[in-house]
Amino acid sequence: MLRGSLLPGDVGRMHLRGIAQVALSASPWTGLLFAVALFADGWRIGLYGLLGAAASTGAAALLGADRDGLAKGLEGYCGCLTGIAVVVRFGASWRTALLAVLAGAVCAVAGAAAGRLLGRVGLPALTAPFCLVSGVLAIAVPAAPAAPAAAPIEGDGFTSLSAAELGRAFCDNIGQVFFLDKWYAGLILLAGLLVASRAAALAAACGSAVAIVTACAMGLPDDRISEGLFGYNAVLVAIALGATFLARTPWTAGYATLAAVASVPFTAAWQAFAQPSGGSPYTWPFVVTTWLFLAAVPALDRPGISLEKAK
Amino acid sequence: MLRGSLLPGDVGRMHLRGIAQVALSASPWTGLLFAVALFADGWRIGLYGLLGAAASTGAAALLGADRDGLAKGLEGYCGCLTGIAVVVRFGASWRTALLAVLAGAVCAVAGAAAGRLLGRVGLPALTAPFCLVSGVLAIAVPAAPAAPAAAPIEGDGFTSLSAAELGRAFCDNIGQVFFLDKWYAGLILLAGLLVASRAAALAAACGSAVAIVTACAMGLPDDRISEGLFGYNAVLVAIALGATFLARTPWTAGYATLAAVASVPFTAAWQAFAQPSGGSPYTWPFVVTTWLFLAAVPALDRPGISLEKAK
Amino acid sequence: MLRGSLLPGDVGRMHLRGIAQVALSASPWTGLLFAVALFADGWRIGLYGLLGAAASTGAAALLGADRDGLAKGLEGYCGCLTGIAVVVRFGASWRTALLAVLAGAVCAVAGAAAGRLLGRVGLPALTAPFCLVSGVLAIAVPAAPAAPAAAPIEGDGFTSLSAAELGRAFCDNIGQVFFLDKWYAGLILLAGLLVASRAAALAAACGSAVAIVTACAMGLPDDRISEGLFGYNAVLVAIALGATFLARTPWTAGYATLAAVASVPFTAAWQAFAQPSGGSPYTWPFVVTTWLFLAAVPALDRPGISLEKAK
Repeated sequence: MLRGSLLPGDVGRMHLRGIAQVALSASPWTGLLFAVALFADGWRIGLYGLLGAAASTGAAALLGADRDGLAKGLEGYCGCLTGIAVVVRFGASWRTALLAVLAGAVCAVAGAAAGRLLGRVGLPALTAPFCLVSGVLAIAVPAAPAAPAAAPIEGDGFTSLSAAELGRAFCDNIGQVFFLDKWYAGLILLAGLLVASRAAALAAACGSAVAIVTACAMGLPDDRISEGLFGYNAVLVAIALGATFLARTPWTAGYATLAAVASVPFTAAWQAFAQPSGGSPYTWPFVVTTWLFLAAVPALDRPGISLEKAK
Repeated sequence: MLRGSLLPGDVGRMHLRGIAQVALSASPWTGLLFAVALFADGWRIGLYGLLGAAASTGAAALLGADRDGLAKGLEGYCGCLTGIAVVVRFGASWRTALLAVLAGAVCAVAGAAAGRLLGRVGLPALTAPFCLVSGVLAIAVPAAPAAPAAAPIEGDGFTSLSAAELGRAFCDNIGQVFFLDKWYAGLILLAGLLVASRAAALAAACGSAVAIVTACAMGLPDDRISEGLFGYNAVLVAIALGATFLARTPWTAGYATLAAVASVPFTAAWQAFAQPSGGSPYTWPFVVTTWLFLAAVPALDRPGISLEKAK
Repeated sequence: MLRGSLLPGDVGRMHLRGIAQVALSASPWTGLLFAVALFADGWRIGLYGLLGAAASTGAAALLGADRDGLAKGLEGYCGCLTGIAVVVRFGASWRTALLAVLAGAVCAVAGAAAGRLLGRVGLPALTAPFCLVSGVLAIAVPAAPAAPAAAPIEGDGFTSLSAAELGRAFCDNIGQVFFLDKWYAGLILLAGLLVASRAAALAAACGSAVAIVTACAMGLPDDRISEGLFGYNAVLVAIALGATFLARTPWTAGYATLAAVASVPFTAAWQAFAQPSGGSPYTWPFVVTTWLFLAAVPALDRPGISLEKAK
């Protein structure tokens, strides 16, 4: 538990870092720009994002979570995403606000459990606590406006996009990391990444482009490609493998590209699978793809692909 | 393998303990009252419960399972539940009796595997072997009277229950741990818990009450709340976290309450998810919720929340 | 990375071993006969099987996978099966050939990850990487001719088969390990097993017979039994537990038989579960059943059931 020794500025910085950690960054400036992007997309999204992050961080502090992790914002990002998921699915009301707070607290416990269990095999928890909690809520409490059934995906032929669709897909692949669907919100997020790390911003942009090419080659429906629904996991995979957890080399770039490509069918499969139950893949495809590609590294002996020394 | 040194009384005690272990108790008196509750609900349920427990314990003894665990009844509870699940779903006949015996034997193997794999991270196997085996059987061999489709769950508004419904929900939340749906069967189970441990009985009662409040706040359908379909996992979670695996403090009570609350949407989600395949959540939500909340404890530094020294 | 020191003959042998490893054999002669069986069933199947094996082995070599494993063919079998799964589901074209190559490369990464994570608990990866990759592709890109809905399975009564159906079921239980549905292809596979190990061939034949009896006792539909759709996992389970990973004793034979029996309802359940999403169980039931029965062994103290010293 944090007692007394934190100044108000520290608390604010901790919360902003909690938002930045959604994209694996610990910079409060990145968090500030991310928060701007959330409010730019809609004030409800911004509010619930902050509320969820505060609930998750508060519960973690109360339960005595690791202090270093708290200060880096590692206890906030899952609560932030869960808060946004709640308001996107169930709307804003005092009941859903209470739900966001409770769900954020459960995220803190799930994060501690995941960190301990996965730490034994050297894997990070990533957004798994968020995916678990939000997935359970989405299936348990079906919202009135059910998700429309996906148009049958045609397996043949490529999908071609107009220039406007291409631009929107590029921005929304980044925005959908936070459930945002306005193109400028995606650009603000990219600016937020750039503030903290050029490599992360470059990786996100490349991940988005790779996802568009892959989705078109698979013949997935154009409207959903341009909404960013197939690419947000590739963006996160590219940031995680291309700019965060692995030493940066040309080999790593290729390895991260293969992972980003693989995340696109994984996302499409998870969507098709989760839809009948009213669920969503959330960022599970990112989490599982990154786990697999990270866990494989120590078993491979490829000079040029190695774990980053310390994060 | 148990050779010669067991008296008939020991064997009987071992079997009764196997039934008591469903609620994490090792008292043969608790097991006796549990068996009475099973027969009170219906003689077929009692018979198949005993048969499954005997099959599982017998197979474990034959395969050389740990002797201490055998004597404490740790090899019987999953077989007992599996036997009941078989007769509830497929009815009583010599074929389903054979099925209960074989499934009980597989439970013994799955229990040994789960115990070894989970023991490495300090987690108990709980009822996971039962859930796995019964879930596979339910999906593999659809019964003639298919489960009726759930009424669409309304996400808005609270559910209000009459006093009779409230009383029935309170009892059936406990009874459904053993698939029992008669209110007096639930009360006999509660008496069985009381014989072994006042704390366990109190935790079960509180867990049942917390589950009713949570389910009503979520607006889940009243008929299913009063049948105990959303609360039996909360009862088990409360016994496990509130009275078994954690040292008893006020903090633990709060922690266990959060877990019991979280188990209710988890149960509703699992039901919605499993229904199209003809499956059921069984006690998976209890198992996974308890694993998460137990695994988190060593990673948290909250004085007042700590693992019980030895069970 | 393999540099220079491999002769063309070594490379060819490595590829044949990669095919033989589908049935846990490292004999190039077995691999040769398996390849003959693939081409006997259809030249496309043979071609894509070789292509997938080459892609997976090549990617593993490029990424610096363990050299011993490479030489034994351990990097080829998942790619081989994935290549066949691709052509069976999506047909032959240059696009699906590219898909088979990429999917094979992802298999190599997933295999390295699975090997490292599972190696910590002493379990082999088996065909898990193939099941994961092929399952994702099947759900992500639904083929035009969707799988016909299963006839409702009758839970009552036995299924009786004619002599011709019996013979076909026996052969196809083996053939379906490679997705083959011609009876003589299954017999060639059995001959391939016999070349490497009489015990493996005997186990495969017994596993096939046990699966037929179990499926008939469960009353599963006769046409699907005779197509081998319920038995191929039992064949693999029997080879793995009866002839590969455990020391061969009469106790082991009984233990492997119980596992083969258990794999049949597991397969039926997985089929029922995966069908609405357009998925297939692939060899998941083999993988999970074998993991459970292997993981249990060190926790049991049954003289006569022990792990094979070294593979």
